[in-house]
Amino acid sequence: MLDEIMTSQHIVKYNGDSFIEQEDDIAVESALTIILDGEEFATIVCSPSEIQELVVGFLASEGIIRVFQEIQSIQVDDEKGFAYVDLVKKQSVQKEFHSKRFIGSCCGKGRQFYFYNDVKTAKTIRSKLTITPHQCSILMKQLQESSAHFRKTGGVHNAALCTKEGIVIKRTDIGRHNALDKLFGYCLIHRIPLKDKIIAFSGRISSEVLLKAAKIGASIILSKSAPTNLALDLAEELGITAIGFIREGGFNVYTHQERIQGLD
Amino acid sequence: MLDEIMTSQHIVKYNGDSFIEQEDDIAVESALTIILDGEEFATIVCSPSEIQELVVGFLASEGIIRVFQEIQSIQVDDEKGFAYVDLVKKQSVQKEFHSKRFIGSCCGKGRQFYFYNDVKTAKTIRSKLTITPHQCSILMKQLQESSAHFRKTGGVHNAALCTKEGIVIKRTDIGRHNALDKLFGYCLIHRIPLKDKIIAFSGRISSEVLLKAAKIGASIILSKSAPTNLALDLAEELGITAIGFIREGGFNVYTHQERIQGLD
Repeated sequence: MLDEIMTSQHIVKYNGDSFIEQEDDIAVESALTIILDGEEFATIVCSPSEIQELVVGFLASEGIIRVFQEIQSIQVDDEKGFAYVDLVKKQSVQKEFHSKRFIGSCCGKGRQFYFYNDVKTAKTIRSKLTITPHQCSILMKQLQESSAHFRKTGGVHNAALCTKEGIVIKRTDIGRHNALDKLFGYCLIHRIPLKDKIIAFSGRISSEVLLKAAKIGASIILSKSAPTNLALDLAEELGITAIGFIREGGFNVYTHQERIQGLD
Repeated sequence: MLDEIMTSQHIVKYNGDSFIEQEDDIAVESALTIILDGEEFATIVCSPSEIQELVVGFLASEGIIRVFQEIQSIQVDDEKGFAYVDLVKKQSVQKEFHSKRFIGSCCGKGRQFYFYNDVKTAKTIRSKLTITPHQCSILMKQLQESSAHFRKTGGVHNAALCTKEGIVIKRTDIGRHNALDKLFGYCLIHRIPLKDKIIAFSGRISSEVLLKAAKIGASIILSKSAPTNLALDLAEELGITAIGFIREGGFNVYTHQERIQGLD
């Protein structure tokens, strides 16, 4: 996989005093266009690994499919960066709405969704899973250690699906949403049960990241970075425990603290 | 502006030993839908500041306008997160193509573009501007120092338009593309000449970031972070000097090193 997502390039390094020519590792970025039932559906830029997982996760996240069995066939043209997907049942009506702004009720406390597909696919999480502070720190440490050999490019995000005991699967991508979509796709293809799962993530918790976690069905999201207020509003409402700034044994708990053992 | 892009939230902090309740600064994230000539054009999530600049820069970057005078009116509804834009000349045909995948010639060295609008709007840069290594480091230091009061939220990106002598204007957003679009919009609205300008940026240099820099017309892009290979292919071809990992007086020069004084 390393060959696919990293490449070597000739660069000039300035060390504060003089210039040195050398080879450096650079993250690979590729365009991928998804053709759905013969029509251009979306173009994303990604790290070109696990393309099938990425496509399946992306389509599920966009509300086009719910299970892998709704896909009749996927053909990936790696060289040109195309994925051709045919569905068992064509759904041209849904495509029209997938990126339309959703305007909720203007009175009362409406959900903070801004796209129709999110309204349809993001689930409220009711898991009774709990986790200790030590487990939070250990999972983030495992994510960082398992990513050590990617760290030198400085240009990729890592996402892992975890249980309390450790990492189940980890995915890497230059796009943070893609790393999560690859996890989602893997779980759908291999029918991994998503109950009581945790997501550990290297990037910020934005609303899009939080919505992806909700669609995957994770009850806890761990990050070494910061959340946004919209992500926290969504986490509160969708029942997800959001934990950020996990560093050196400490962290911040933003929402649904009832899942943290010792904090009630 | 601080009030618009940051908010205070009640959180629980774990310090490795015990839990403490406290207030924390969180980056604000809002959905903004652009209605173009009465039709829904795009929804983006952003830091809700300088919305008019963001909309103008986004439309220019998408190839919908080239100059501010092509816009007849902009009305921003801050509360609902809508911007209503009417163009002097309606261009419904262009809208259809704006996010379509562009497939270049399959023989010879075609440009690495993946969207039609990029083919149309990204310019090849022919500036004779040169910069010293010291100026590179100083500009990045100025960007970081001017952002010190935002740093605590940990959730925003900063972009600055600079000359060799210093920062002309700086913009902040939770979305790195938005920070660049706000710069672009400011320059178009105020007719800032873009010849011989430099962009200093807090985030990674992805292909999308590089294309935004090309559309703005900057000849040098400075980043404290890493580039991707696709961004570097585009920089090489569009004539942009890409400099990354600017840290502690040192940095990496990836493309068009003829603009670095002392390196020829």
